[in-house]
Amino acid sequence: MPDPNHIRQVYDRYPELLNKGDVDGILALYADDATIEDPIGSDLRRGRDAIRAFYEASTGSVTMKRTGPVRVAGREAATPLVVLMGPEGQQQALDIISTMSFDEHGKITAMRAFWSFDALRPATPED
Amino acid sequence: MPDPNHIRQVYDRYPELLNKGDVDGILALYADDATIEDPIGSDLRRGRDAIRAFYEASTGSVTMKRTGPVRVAGREAATPLVVLMGPEGQQQALDIISTMSFDEHGKITAMRAFWSFDALRPATPED
Repeated sequence: MPDPNHIRQVYDRYPELLNKGDVDGILALYADDATIEDPIGSDLRRGRDAIRAFYEASTGSVTMKRTGPVRVAGREAATPLVVLMGPEGQQQALDIISTMSFDEHGKITAMRAFWSFDALRPATPED
Repeated sequence: MPDPNHIRQVYDRYPELLNKGDVDGILALYADDATIEDPIGSDLRRGRDAIRAFYEASTGSVTMKRTGPVRVAGREAATPLVVLMGPEGQQQALDIISTMSFDEHGKITAMRAFWSFDALRPATPED
């Protein structure tokens, strides 16, 4: 079973790496045959090439922050996040919950993101 | 596809009904053959009798509050919650994320709860 503190650290590293645009760093968190469903309902992306393409497309233009504690349950975890996008002064915010499953080495085997664009809202000073 | 606003209402009703101990009200939110995995990693409970037994055992002794927006993604949704338990002045808090899947009638077909007892912490005035 992966260490709960390791899982919490992954969820701190993940927004940090995303905000820096460090796609290699993000890929190192994932198992080779991992899957991503982001947002839920979209086509499943599987494996390193698909995961790299996904993050290369999504990093650089958004800022992600964790907004509450990581909830760990065995091999799985869920975390509330907010993603900020758009120019300073006109930023938009999207509330997301991400769930991840982990293998025995602590690598992410599956990531699913709960959000939809119809929940996009103006960012507030609290974001 | 279920209406996103209906899904958000279910996630407002759910803690209300739980806090009142209204097990019939909770059951009415679920489809007949729904499953519950609470916490994740425990045995799956399936169907009305198992769901009734689960909520009869868990209501009455805890208070649940939603702590952030419901994230809806198509037929699924995720919500951050806190559960408070124990006597006044010595209350403990447990941070939970619940995910639900819905059928075309807006009934819950699956509920999964991300938490573990090792994350139990003293309740604060903000809870």
